[in-house]
Amino acid sequence: MHLNTPRIIGFIDLGTNSVRLLVVRLNQNGSYTLVTQQKEVIRLGEGEFTDNRLTDAAMQRATGVIVRLIELAKSRGAEEFVAVATSATREASNGEELCNRIEDLTGVQIHIISGAEEARLIWLGVSSGIDLKGETALFIDIGGGSTEIIVGDQHEPFFLRSLKLGAIRTTGMFVQAEKDGRVSQHMLFSLRRRIEHEIVHIARHINTWNITRAIGSSGTILSLETVAASHKPCVSSHIPGFISIEELDILIRYLSNLPLHMRKEVPGLNSDRADIIIAGAVILHEIVKVSGLKGVYTSSRSLRDGLLVDYITRIPGFPHAEPVSIRERSVRHLGRLCHIDEPHASHIVKLSLQLYHSGIRAGLFPSYDEAEELLSHAAYLHDVGQFISFSNHHQHSFYLITQVPLLGFNQHEVLMIGLIARYHRKKLPRQRDNPFQELDRTDRRIVRVLSLLLRIAENLDRSHDRRIEKAEFIRKKDRVVLSVSCISDCSLEIWAVESEKDSFFRTFRTKLQIDTHRG
Amino acid sequence: MHLNTPRIIGFIDLGTNSVRLLVVRLNQNGSYTLVTQQKEVIRLGEGEFTDNRLTDAAMQRATGVIVRLIELAKSRGAEEFVAVATSATREASNGEELCNRIEDLTGVQIHIISGAEEARLIWLGVSSGIDLKGETALFIDIGGGSTEIIVGDQHEPFFLRSLKLGAIRTTGMFVQAEKDGRVSQHMLFSLRRRIEHEIVHIARHINTWNITRAIGSSGTILSLETVAASHKPCVSSHIPGFISIEELDILIRYLSNLPLHMRKEVPGLNSDRADIIIAGAVILHEIVKVSGLKGVYTSSRSLRDGLLVDYITRIPGFPHAEPVSIRERSVRHLGRLCHIDEPHASHIVKLSLQLYHSGIRAGLFPSYDEAEELLSHAAYLHDVGQFISFSNHHQHSFYLITQVPLLGFNQHEVLMIGLIARYHRKKLPRQRDNPFQELDRTDRRIVRVLSLLLRIAENLDRSHDRRIEKAEFIRKKDRVVLSVSCISDCSLEIWAVESEKDSFFRTFRTKLQIDTHRG
Repeated sequence: MHLNTPRIIGFIDLGTNSVRLLVVRLNQNGSYTLVTQQKEVIRLGEGEFTDNRLTDAAMQRATGVIVRLIELAKSRGAEEFVAVATSATREASNGEELCNRIEDLTGVQIHIISGAEEARLIWLGVSSGIDLKGETALFIDIGGGSTEIIVGDQHEPFFLRSLKLGAIRTTGMFVQAEKDGRVSQHMLFSLRRRIEHEIVHIARHINTWNITRAIGSSGTILSLETVAASHKPCVSSHIPGFISIEELDILIRYLSNLPLHMRKEVPGLNSDRADIIIAGAVILHEIVKVSGLKGVYTSSRSLRDGLLVDYITRIPGFPHAEPVSIRERSVRHLGRLCHIDEPHASHIVKLSLQLYHSGIRAGLFPSYDEAEELLSHAAYLHDVGQFISFSNHHQHSFYLITQVPLLGFNQHEVLMIGLIARYHRKKLPRQRDNPFQELDRTDRRIVRVLSLLLRIAENLDRSHDRRIEKAEFIRKKDRVVLSVSCISDCSLEIWAVESEKDSFFRTFRTKLQIDTHRG
Repeated sequence: MHLNTPRIIGFIDLGTNSVRLLVVRLNQNGSYTLVTQQKEVIRLGEGEFTDNRLTDAAMQRATGVIVRLIELAKSRGAEEFVAVATSATREASNGEELCNRIEDLTGVQIHIISGAEEARLIWLGVSSGIDLKGETALFIDIGGGSTEIIVGDQHEPFFLRSLKLGAIRTTGMFVQAEKDGRVSQHMLFSLRRRIEHEIVHIARHINTWNITRAIGSSGTILSLETVAASHKPCVSSHIPGFISIEELDILIRYLSNLPLHMRKEVPGLNSDRADIIIAGAVILHEIVKVSGLKGVYTSSRSLRDGLLVDYITRIPGFPHAEPVSIRERSVRHLGRLCHIDEPHASHIVKLSLQLYHSGIRAGLFPSYDEAEELLSHAAYLHDVGQFISFSNHHQHSFYLITQVPLLGFNQHEVLMIGLIARYHRKKLPRQRDNPFQELDRTDRRIVRVLSLLLRIAENLDRSHDRRIEKAEFIRKKDRVVLSVSCISDCSLEIWAVESEKDSFFRTFRTKLQIDTHRG
């Protein structure tokens, strides 16, 4: 991933209310330049949250807009895209369908990310735009379908939570306006209660940190600040870039008393947000209230910026690149949480990668995109399932890897890592296995190949004593030799690997011979 | 469960090789008397381990024998049965079928228990028969389908493991004898290797304790001791009740060199064990070898005795009853492992039980067997799934409860606890839900009722502040009143419970009214 020439990347955030595009040129000297950015309201989640399906109309709206945005980005030179979809797509039963449709039309793959990953990217986007000077902050982002709450400082998020509360969702489910669009006091009261209900357990978490300020991002919060700035609801003067809790209180009363057609005319409020702004304001009000803070600072940065920062930090040698990536950190965290044998896990990572690289040289399989990273995470995490129970621990590993929020990965990557770990012992992948069968042909092959490498590596450390230093495949005419170099007696390991000769043959249609020597 | 009259109980252990019956009379003074015991070889697991199904012949053999044994026990006065099935039944895809068939014929329910529970019961049976004087011992039990390895002292098992190694399984899968039944040196070598392969990871665990002796139970080990006693294979004299590793070594060589028809004549060896004794001896040899001990003491106690001790310790006021049962300890252990909020969990237990008892008094539901215990464990564990992820944590709780070995429970009880916890939030149980739909009518009702109580209790502590002291149902003419007494403002809790009125009506077809007062 070294950067030899400038590169133009399109970042896309397919949200519940809107879709955002950011096109950036990464320069060789480590700097980057904004090429263009754009936002379109698509109301993807509208009508979804009652029966969990994106409506046909919403799918069509979204597809049309995204195709146009991608064309725009390509016309500005984007050759690579990083595209994620959040709440509305994540929860809809036909979310994958939307992603496939877009990929068919444009070739751009949209990755559905988890709520925790969404929260992390928001933290990354917002926190990288300010200087927190060692303070711990509460980050709030109110989207259409979900609200992300993060506690973190400049360097790390400590708490990430995605709540199923959002301006569109909450309006659709809980707000029954009067005929003219006013929202009654009674309705407001019940709305507050519902939101309080959703956030009360968060409050206890939040209050364990010494939070000195709240920072709100997202269109909802920015709009509220703009309205406050022009409306000046309080006696005390408005602080630009800040909404106090009193201002919020007054704004909610003011906006809910206006008929919809008048709300659409309020200075600073985008007319297509006028119907959902009240729910958004109440959500913000309740969160600020439980945090015990006086108000919330606003930031115009968002998930989209998080995508950019995330991308940059993964380019080796590029400024901002951290020594240990968030992925790595998150993988290690899960390992520790499950009390794995860390030296064994690291040893299996090492052996698996030796097998992978030598396997390519030996012509056993081609080099696959991302395979090295997937394999090394799967190798590190292969035994996490032992936390649940030794028997069937490969299946428990799959469960934990796919269910514990792993940060910095999209859902597909998590699935691949889970499956590679899943097949590190017992039966080889079978066509009928779920969810293996849902992968496409190439991914099924990748899982078969990488899990076999992991299986061999695991047997090469059967005793957990790290007796084998090096293992590599070498091509001989009619067979492949696994050359193993050990530092002490490893007959148990060799015997264990012998038992995988058959799996090797079934995977590669090539005979395996094992040669051992003291290294 | 107080004991007012003497009671006769039949304990049944349906193993892979044999079925054992123990009939015991519990006396009012806290003593008990053995009424009868019997063992029959049924070879239930024979032919199973290749395609994971009990064969028709084996099912028929087993059914016939068990029906006879149950009749025998009934004729001796047994009115209650505690019956468990282990490895062969646990792993077979048609194991449940066998249990159902037996229940249809005799009315006795056979519970399939997990490997860890099997190991615990063996430890309980064996350790309660000896005085360990503070020593830590290695307990080994070699069954037909599995081998249980336990590290424990007199009071507690520290390590429990059920290995898929057993005399029948291992013989069927790995021993290819010569035509006349001899086992070649080469075959023995490969057998040892396979077994070493299975136990190498156990060895690392075992060696972290200071184990001063090994104690072997099961027919296989007792037979080997008897053969050693009459054969006296070593120069040094045989110690009764002990098999040294040298004796084992010589016995294996001696027995494998005999044709089967001669092995059947060996003094001390039951002829129907002659074909599987070699695999059993090699398993024992390898385990003793990795433990670094000189040999193994034998015990004629077994899982069957564990069932008796387990039963007795659960009778309140009966001697042996521990202050905290193994179930309780195991449930708390899982809670701590998953870092639950313990005061909240205990509070939910308390409120759930108040609702349960008052619900019976109010005529909402009858008193169900075991319901109180199932509910209190489910209430304690309802939030364990948050360890995996907050979103869908009710589902993760189900996974953890059913997958982490909970000691002292059978599989059906674990399933019930898991399901009650599963439905403590979000959707009510639906007919089509898996595995809810697999329960019988009564159990489905129990899950519906108890999970609803848990759901209400959970909402009564929405803030986790334990503001509500007491909650009970009171029957009024056309409705039921939930009378709530709180120690501080609990409007949030009440509002939360209000949202469950509909679930209450759907479950009981009765209106719920909520009355709050300061207690």
